[in-house]
Amino acid sequence: MSVIDAQGETHRDQSSAAYNQLLERLGALSDLNSALALLEWDQETKMPEEGASSRSTAYATLSSIAHDLHTSKETLGLLEAAEREQAGADPDSDQAALLREARLDFESSTKLPADFIAEYARIQAGAQRVWVKARSGSNFDLFKPDLERIFAMARRKAEYLGYEEHPYDALLNEFEPGITTALLRGILADLKDRLVPLLAKIKKSRVVIEDKILRKTYSEDKQLAFCKELLEKMGVDSGRSRLDAAAHAFTAPISSPFDVRVTTRCIRDYLNSGVFGSIHEGGHALFELGVDRKFARTPLAQIKSMGLHESQSLLWENMIGRSREFWTYQFPLLQQRFPNQLLHERLETFYCAINKVNSSCIRLEADEVTYCLHIILRFELEVDLIEGTIKVADLPRFWNDRFEAMFGVRPSSDAEGVLQDVHWSGGAIGYFPAYDLGKIISAQLLAQAKIEIPNLMDSIASGNYAPLREWLATNVHQYGRKYSTAQLVRRITGREITCDDFISYLEEKYGELYSLSL
Amino acid sequence: MSVIDAQGETHRDQSSAAYNQLLERLGALSDLNSALALLEWDQETKMPEEGASSRSTAYATLSSIAHDLHTSKETLGLLEAAEREQAGADPDSDQAALLREARLDFESSTKLPADFIAEYARIQAGAQRVWVKARSGSNFDLFKPDLERIFAMARRKAEYLGYEEHPYDALLNEFEPGITTALLRGILADLKDRLVPLLAKIKKSRVVIEDKILRKTYSEDKQLAFCKELLEKMGVDSGRSRLDAAAHAFTAPISSPFDVRVTTRCIRDYLNSGVFGSIHEGGHALFELGVDRKFARTPLAQIKSMGLHESQSLLWENMIGRSREFWTYQFPLLQQRFPNQLLHERLETFYCAINKVNSSCIRLEADEVTYCLHIILRFELEVDLIEGTIKVADLPRFWNDRFEAMFGVRPSSDAEGVLQDVHWSGGAIGYFPAYDLGKIISAQLLAQAKIEIPNLMDSIASGNYAPLREWLATNVHQYGRKYSTAQLVRRITGREITCDDFISYLEEKYGELYSLSL
Repeated sequence: MSVIDAQGETHRDQSSAAYNQLLERLGALSDLNSALALLEWDQETKMPEEGASSRSTAYATLSSIAHDLHTSKETLGLLEAAEREQAGADPDSDQAALLREARLDFESSTKLPADFIAEYARIQAGAQRVWVKARSGSNFDLFKPDLERIFAMARRKAEYLGYEEHPYDALLNEFEPGITTALLRGILADLKDRLVPLLAKIKKSRVVIEDKILRKTYSEDKQLAFCKELLEKMGVDSGRSRLDAAAHAFTAPISSPFDVRVTTRCIRDYLNSGVFGSIHEGGHALFELGVDRKFARTPLAQIKSMGLHESQSLLWENMIGRSREFWTYQFPLLQQRFPNQLLHERLETFYCAINKVNSSCIRLEADEVTYCLHIILRFELEVDLIEGTIKVADLPRFWNDRFEAMFGVRPSSDAEGVLQDVHWSGGAIGYFPAYDLGKIISAQLLAQAKIEIPNLMDSIASGNYAPLREWLATNVHQYGRKYSTAQLVRRITGREITCDDFISYLEEKYGELYSLSL
Repeated sequence: MSVIDAQGETHRDQSSAAYNQLLERLGALSDLNSALALLEWDQETKMPEEGASSRSTAYATLSSIAHDLHTSKETLGLLEAAEREQAGADPDSDQAALLREARLDFESSTKLPADFIAEYARIQAGAQRVWVKARSGSNFDLFKPDLERIFAMARRKAEYLGYEEHPYDALLNEFEPGITTALLRGILADLKDRLVPLLAKIKKSRVVIEDKILRKTYSEDKQLAFCKELLEKMGVDSGRSRLDAAAHAFTAPISSPFDVRVTTRCIRDYLNSGVFGSIHEGGHALFELGVDRKFARTPLAQIKSMGLHESQSLLWENMIGRSREFWTYQFPLLQQRFPNQLLHERLETFYCAINKVNSSCIRLEADEVTYCLHIILRFELEVDLIEGTIKVADLPRFWNDRFEAMFGVRPSSDAEGVLQDVHWSGGAIGYFPAYDLGKIISAQLLAQAKIEIPNLMDSIASGNYAPLREWLATNVHQYGRKYSTAQLVRRITGREITCDDFISYLEEKYGELYSLSL
């Protein structure tokens, strides 16, 4: 049996010869992915403008080299030999998990024929161009033919990928391995049934929350300096990470867990973007930085579950970062950074502002309460379209009807409705549910953490994030991709994925904020 | 025939099918090298500290993939097919030049057997560890066995690479293609004969130059801001370049001519390092940025001549950047940046300080006059060692004797003498002469530029660097690697490489600075 030590080095013995050869091959693949991640990070943060065209060529070349290496006969041969060699391994061992994941990666890289991939890419490129125009003119008819092609391709993709129960399962599994449409339907229907009445009560509340405190003038440089301190405090190790400004917030796992970088977008007259973007990406980074070092350069360090990843970022951004306790400690520090803007403001004003509920038709403007409803709408429509229960031509009507039923308002145009998201034109059918899974799981994990860590929120209020970070590292981060999301939730909480904790969290928090009788 | 357009795209026709296939392969290789350059740049500028180990693994993997791609049978097949197809091409055409250089690259990548490369790498790694110890203890005997192995390997390397006249030619050609030991001997002997008396006169001069103006306290941030402005003014296009602080100054050709980055090392109490490091690297960057866009992603955009590259950096750093005219314009700007330090200082004090001649035993502390002598010493010793005329065991004696004959002082220890450079332990035998070739050629080019550009130094004095930059772009930069260094010098100046202009330049400048009678 081979042992992977803390440096990610493998100590070889005869009984693991094939396994070790596979590890070498997967390590080389991981190195190529590391270079690709750097090419991408650099492009968004440091690259001179005119480097763009040659950068995209270099990116395409390395991607193609990585794809060829991954899907080659030699890789398959090494995989099969390792599988034979390790056939008797304990299914819960690292070796068994690694082979399982390597096999899944290989399958998902080889199931789609090259000409299908090329055709889909061409259709997506066309669709994205048309979508930009269609959205700006709020003209759904212009986008309709492209969207029809996209969903037709998505259905074909599902057939190539294969599924047991529902074609949408195959699309979901690209972003959330192991989850099924049936399972999600149950969870999200439950969530919807409980969120819609909560939202209705909030809308009826006489409490009016002002958020102009967030819309004063805050210098971007000072915001970034504050965010750096905040991440440091969260435990995002500056010896293995860095924060940069970029046009959008993202996490770049250059080489997990040794080099994981985050970005944020600071906006001069809107404090939320930079601050909560940083905390969100900090949550992602803590996950990547927390993966056991022995998994470095293996598939087990490449986290595939978007829902689990989002659970980490959302736990920090919303459940911690938007809590009264968090700002009890951080607000005085923010006031020190921005005395002219904040010295005479109250913590409570700030706390209410960052938790204001609105019923915007736009997903990207949504809050903690409404965000999930935006996603449920998209999930239901995607499933119906894949099933063929509804037609693309009827989308605007279904979108607006269902939105109105949940939110009590109707989008004034398709630009504010069915045309608002980039996902469909990009072919990312099946991606949306990960956002809701992330919210649900974050609440379920935090509820468990509160049971296991005495006075957790008191430590947050005193600026001590170590107990929570360590709990997450021990229970979630260290395993990387070893367990499926559902398995992990079960291991940690003893329960299946459920929205109970998320609803309780929302009812408690927003019940108080909006003086609701629940 | 194929045509490469401004985007570096090739328009194909039947008669260039093989050539175009080769271009595609070389383009992919260039993309890998671009990723490698980024991995390296990032490591020196932005990478979190603990990313080092995984970075070096990723670098090794990509290097090995690039090497395999380059030396594969398929590449050779494409090269041979393209050579057959283009056999009748005009030898002065881009196609012929590209095939010539691609063939040279292929040969130099395949001539050394893999086990020899591995053995040499192992010996170098050992030698570098021992050299660090030997230098710190000034103990040549400790280093001697390693140095003997290094020179034995260098002789073997010369045999593998092949040469017509002298084994040292083979080593030289790694860094300066087309140059011969015989040619260099002539040029450098001439240079030495004229430099030694000049240095003797300077040492006897009663003029004493003070350089304490350079050693005040200058904030690194402000230095960097000044250097950024300076590079912008030089014409280092900020849309295709950037300047960052790093532990040493270097130029990273990420993707010439679209993305070329420079670094500099600002030192708080020594202005020269940051400022002249920036100008030096700016000269390198202008070369890479000036290569014709049609050569992008081909060997013709990968400049191999170290001497020619250094001629560009040294021309800007020394002949322009250390001229009175340059600081006539720039000194007031520097004063504005550092009013406390410089407002009451005179331009002349600054000009003298940056041109102070010292006779340090250490190459890295040398000035414009003495630097070449340091190199000549090393060149002569390397040639003698490769010929076997002298033995490694006798090196310290020869080093000190010859140094004393040129400088009039004797190194007080081997740490200040034969043990001072990193090059030999790194196996870079044959590299040193490029520095002197750079100095000589820079003077020869500037002399020609002064003939062709009316009032060149007046335009420098008014902060207008465009005429010089454009002259260099037209005469040198655009061609990338199309011509050999000797060819290019001949094309531009109508003369062979000669140190006449360099000596005239030094005599005029230092004659005035040190009130010499020459």
